Amino acid sequence: MIKRIEVRDVRYKLDSNAGSDAIHRDPVYSYAVTRLIDESGIIGNGFAFTLGKGNDLVCQAAQYYAEKLVGKDIEETMADFGALFRQLSDDQQFRWLGPHKGVVHLALASVTNACYDLWAKKRGLPLWKLLTTLSPEAIVNTLDFSYLEDELTKEQALALLHDEQPARNVRENILDRGYPGYDTSVGWFNYSDEKVRENCHKALASGFTAMKLKVGSADPERDIRRAHIVREVAGPEAKVMLDANQQWNLSQAMAICDQLKSMNPYWIEEPTHPDDVLAHKTLAEHMAPVKLALGEHVPNKVIFKNYLQAKAAAFIQVDAVRVGGVSEFITISLLCKKFGIPVVPHVGDMGQLHQHLVLFNHIAMGHEALFLEHIPHLQKHFVNPAIVENGVYKIPQEAGSSCDLIALKN
Amino acid sequence: MIKRIEVRDVRYKLDSNAGSDAIHRDPVYSYAVTRLIDESGIIGNGFAFTLGKGNDLVCQAAQYYAEKLVGKDIEETMADFGALFRQLSDDQQFRWLGPHKGVVHLALASVTNACYDLWAKKRGLPLWKLLTTLSPEAIVNTLDFSYLEDELTKEQALALLHDEQPARNVRENILDRGYPGYDTSVGWFNYSDEKVRENCHKALASGFTAMKLKVGSADPERDIRRAHIVREVAGPEAKVMLDANQQWNLSQAMAICDQLKSMNPYWIEEPTHPDDVLAHKTLAEHMAPVKLALGEHVPNKVIFKNYLQAKAAAFIQVDAVRVGGVSEFITISLLCKKFGIPVVPHVGDMGQLHQHLVLFNHIAMGHEALFLEHIPHLQKHFVNPAIVENGVYKIPQEAGSSCDLIALKN
Repeated sequence: MIKRIEVRDVRYKLDSNAGSDAIHRDPVYSYAVTRLIDESGIIGNGFAFTLGKGNDLVCQAAQYYAEKLVGKDIEETMADFGALFRQLSDDQQFRWLGPHKGVVHLALASVTNACYDLWAKKRGLPLWKLLTTLSPEAIVNTLDFSYLEDELTKEQALALLHDEQPARNVRENILDRGYPGYDTSVGWFNYSDEKVRENCHKALASGFTAMKLKVGSADPERDIRRAHIVREVAGPEAKVMLDANQQWNLSQAMAICDQLKSMNPYWIEEPTHPDDVLAHKTLAEHMAPVKLALGEHVPNKVIFKNYLQAKAAAFIQVDAVRVGGVSEFITISLLCKKFGIPVVPHVGDMGQLHQHLVLFNHIAMGHEALFLEHIPHLQKHFVNPAIVENGVYKIPQEAGSSCDLIALKN
Repeated sequence: MIKRIEVRDVRYKLDSNAGSDAIHRDPVYSYAVTRLIDESGIIGNGFAFTLGKGNDLVCQAAQYYAEKLVGKDIEETMADFGALFRQLSDDQQFRWLGPHKGVVHLALASVTNACYDLWAKKRGLPLWKLLTTLSPEAIVNTLDFSYLEDELTKEQALALLHDEQPARNVRENILDRGYPGYDTSVGWFNYSDEKVRENCHKALASGFTAMKLKVGSADPERDIRRAHIVREVAGPEAKVMLDANQQWNLSQAMAICDQLKSMNPYWIEEPTHPDDVLAHKTLAEHMAPVKLALGEHVPNKVIFKNYLQAKAAAFIQVDAVRVGGVSEFITISLLCKKFGIPVVPHVGDMGQLHQHLVLFNHIAMGHEALFLEHIPHLQKHFVNPAIVENGVYKIPQEAGSSCDLIALKN
């Protein structure tokens, strides 16, 4: 039984210029952490990610949701978590502040993730192990399909998971190899050309074959120059992704992306406003065969459904610390599977939680094991930091979702 | 010069069952009020609207934005408000909590609206009078067209306003007649059939020729029965609108709306999730010639642009206390004008602010003077309550935007 709850506001200053992009020049990586203290003594930790200011608002909203969990048994809660998720996300008055977006939905992510962490810890299993050993029926009972039924009902999701069962044992080979990573940190926006070049060399030496550069400069020539630097160092076979972090409007994006095509980007990420489904559709058609990726700022399953229906994104970067936590992440992953679109999460959690979720997506859902973003900047702050060696995430073995922070260690 | 700021959390319990709808059964009408205290002694009041819980979160976010206004001169501020709006809405760290949606964007509405109120009060003019006497150049300088440029640039908006200048004097006749209202309060969700019937009679006796019923019952028969009650009492000529407040998924909406067609609704409002542009598009095509209305939960101009591009809504119900205040309301109204779609605001402000804005939309922009929602439940709480007589809003004459609350009167 959950005896009491705590919510904590934890913020980390980054080293100079790390984390910077075209829109967010001075981020302070921050977590609104929900802690569910079970009478067994086990603590479930979950969080949402922000860039600093306003993290306290997410904490206050998380406190409101989390208080409703006091006195609940986690096994009973998770047996029908989909219903609880819908109830919380449709809270009579709080709902007005979204619905299903912004501060309240970030808060719901924090609380939801704490539930999954507690569940896995009480079973003594890493989250990926728990999720991959649950029956398809148990999985869909943790999900809320409301407003998705025109594309995916609970019954269809169940059938999809059952269909993927036979080939699971082949896909479980990933547990021997580890999940591939890519290096996000070679080219933060404020880094000099020299530092980008140096970081690319380091990334290759560390075993990465995929890496990302921040673009979206006021001067497009800077973007083009730097993109070609990365391509030159990384070589023609490496996957190089370009990330504009919403900097362009549609016509700017069309013009600049045309010029960026020459360095053969693996994808172009967040070219414009994350709410603009139809602009992305237009741009995707214009840019083909170059592909678009997006999702780190898309708050819920309904908008992802629209992106998928519009064929506006070729990679879905849903983030479980932005949407309503693990539950909605899995729901969106099922939707992507139906549409044949790969899930490549954005990692506001620095990959701690998502290293579990991509294993589940691959093993139980049959998603391709493409690669998972790697950002090392907070490694020293986690009790069990994700370990990436030779460009590959090692399989986490500790119980839970790897989201315990040293700052909150008892 | 703005000497200091205050932010206040004001909440009003409603009479039994007033304000209830299919999703929000127990609303507490609440305002997150920003007060800009000018050294002249004049106070600019603006607010965002919520349903109670979480109103304090909006207040805290408003405080953050409002503090940036201390020391500013309001005339200088409004001469280039579009740039300030973009700067605030793209705040480096706060932006992550949206962008442009949820708690932070509600807060921006509150602060923006206080700026317009102070501006009008310092000029000694009702807001509609200030706005209608500003030059097209001065108007577009208060607006932010970022991410709209594929449909509407600043230059195009300016041309549109200039084009509407010649026929203004004819449209100014509205100032003699008053702006038509419609009665939203005949059929709140929790009202009994008898009360709905009685309220329809009262609405007709008060001079209304248009009224709204809340639908979205678990039992569709209840919706259909009550819709026909309203039609029966109101007569075949009255405009009767049906409002589902997002209760249905797409297939439910298709099935129920088919049955509701027989009572000839003027529109069907918020049939499904407010983020689901493509579901509304599908439903709009299915329901034609019956029309859809939506917008009270649409947070920003980018999503409205998508709704307009998709031809998914025939009436746009943008609310200046949900989107980023008067500035974004005007931007969205210009976009609607370009698409030939009427603006019929949702009135989280109880019509206090919007009675000014619809006059501007009609006179300066050439929007049809269709009608403005009337909700009387908070009338006694405003210093200058909107006056609706014979179904018509009287033209407000006091300086400002009519948003001063008695609870905050000095």
